[in-house]
Amino acid sequence: VAEFALIDRLAERVPTDGPGVVLSIGDDAAVLGDLGDELLVAATDTMNAGVHFLDDVSPVALGHKSLAVNLSDLAAMGARPRWALLNLSLPHADPNWLDAFADGFGALAREHEVSLVGGDTCEGAMSIGVTVLGTVPPGQALRRDGAAIGDDIYVSGNLGDAALALRERLAGRLVAEQDARALDFPEPELALGRGLRSQASACIDLSDGLLSDLGHVARQSGLAARVELERLPTSPSLAAIAEDDRFTLQLTGGEDYGLCFCAAPEREKAIRSLAAAEGTRVTRIGQIEAGAGIRCLHPDGSEWLPAASGWEHFREPRP
Amino acid sequence: VAEFALIDRLAERVPTDGPGVVLSIGDDAAVLGDLGDELLVAATDTMNAGVHFLDDVSPVALGHKSLAVNLSDLAAMGARPRWALLNLSLPHADPNWLDAFADGFGALAREHEVSLVGGDTCEGAMSIGVTVLGTVPPGQALRRDGAAIGDDIYVSGNLGDAALALRERLAGRLVAEQDARALDFPEPELALGRGLRSQASACIDLSDGLLSDLGHVARQSGLAARVELERLPTSPSLAAIAEDDRFTLQLTGGEDYGLCFCAAPEREKAIRSLAAAEGTRVTRIGQIEAGAGIRCLHPDGSEWLPAASGWEHFREPRP
Repeated sequence: VAEFALIDRLAERVPTDGPGVVLSIGDDAAVLGDLGDELLVAATDTMNAGVHFLDDVSPVALGHKSLAVNLSDLAAMGARPRWALLNLSLPHADPNWLDAFADGFGALAREHEVSLVGGDTCEGAMSIGVTVLGTVPPGQALRRDGAAIGDDIYVSGNLGDAALALRERLAGRLVAEQDARALDFPEPELALGRGLRSQASACIDLSDGLLSDLGHVARQSGLAARVELERLPTSPSLAAIAEDDRFTLQLTGGEDYGLCFCAAPEREKAIRSLAAAEGTRVTRIGQIEAGAGIRCLHPDGSEWLPAASGWEHFREPRP
Repeated sequence: VAEFALIDRLAERVPTDGPGVVLSIGDDAAVLGDLGDELLVAATDTMNAGVHFLDDVSPVALGHKSLAVNLSDLAAMGARPRWALLNLSLPHADPNWLDAFADGFGALAREHEVSLVGGDTCEGAMSIGVTVLGTVPPGQALRRDGAAIGDDIYVSGNLGDAALALRERLAGRLVAEQDARALDFPEPELALGRGLRSQASACIDLSDGLLSDLGHVARQSGLAARVELERLPTSPSLAAIAEDDRFTLQLTGGEDYGLCFCAAPEREKAIRSLAAAEGTRVTRIGQIEAGAGIRCLHPDGSEWLPAASGWEHFREPRP
């Protein structure tokens, strides 16, 4: 089993030291400091082979994505990421696989100044559990439950590209490079999330699909949401497919990892300036209303509902 | 997959709120505060079915042990536990299993005032990943690398009971209740660990077996250790088996989850008082020396080495 004591090898390719790291990998636990007056923000997410990713996905992409989906949760809180812990279960120890995984994880960690401070590697079905720790000033965390009637609803980036890429890949068809990138290398919207602290009333990251994720915001805020389908931000790949199919992917496909947030209408100018400054595109897609649930308005004026989706088992339900 | 959105069900049986919990399960991340001037201590450990536990172990025991082995890491740092996050992968959603798991996890969490503040439950081979967060005053964390020449070496509790129970269970033989309890319901030595902050020069928890764990302390301290086998704390069950077999289980069996720590000889009285006050037994088993590696002295005066052990694949290597 010594072959599974691979954390040391991983640590050669991933930053394990940095500001606030008093004691990193190599003891019973990490000791972390330098929080100042900030609160701690903690998120955790697991990706399992055959459930959250296909067995033949590149280990570089898995390393990137396993950290990215967790950083995306911190982005949705308006938090600054600091530290990560990794639980890596592998059926066998393949040094090349591990090095590539560490390269993907490490590059994203470096980009966002995250240090890997703890973890374990052990034998088992392939499973990647990541826990991220960050900070946020008291009272400034972006929550799901703060939306108000009349708030505009925004999303960042495009919707549906990752879901389309996954469907094409499962069908054995060629996937456009931009769509494959959306699926394999999502970029967590950390700078946008921090900028939204002073602007947004509620925020969530788009992991399960807009209907599900915005549904959490509406339910936890005790309100309803109206989505105008013609406003959904759409890449050329998505624009080329049939409309019902496109809306279904954009609303239920999941894996977008942009932010969905709400803000009072008078915030629009500040939000557009913020997005421009961060080089991110945000799109206003609807409005918060009294009531419960999500109403999707078709361009023809009718209410629209997606057909049953076949993607459930590649998506992870979230509380 | 909605059947796997089980965190809410879990949260009914495990404390999810408490001091310092600003925002718990139900948002993208937990927001935690109330650290005062203390440093954060973070540990993570995964248990996989068929590797770290047998498929038929009771879910109550799994709930207890998955948290206990992580709290044991915090004990070894002298930290006070505060919060936990749980990554639970299950092949199918069995509410009775989950309730029993939550009862085991929750009872230990309540005992040590730990709140479950984040987690995800998803489909996959059974795997239980727990991350615990605690606090320690600056400069007071117990590390592995502080042992000095002449320090006494101590362990808490008995050695080998859990390993014996595992062997008997694998062989289909009846297991003494006390030994089964050592294997299934280890008690993390949190109070002892906190008391040792001002007494011990180095500390580790006994997860992989004394030889391996004390080996980490010796190596990371740049020194050697001498262990006197006749001093190893031994339960009646262990005392009843052949001596070579007993020593092998006690040195390499693992899963003891007591603490192994070093302290200057003049600390002995304070350490014995501390252990008595906490109702824990500590035993002096050897001494730190110049050099490298572990020397085990047999009662007959010879140096003793364990035979190759058959337990490797039930133990998780640690960095």
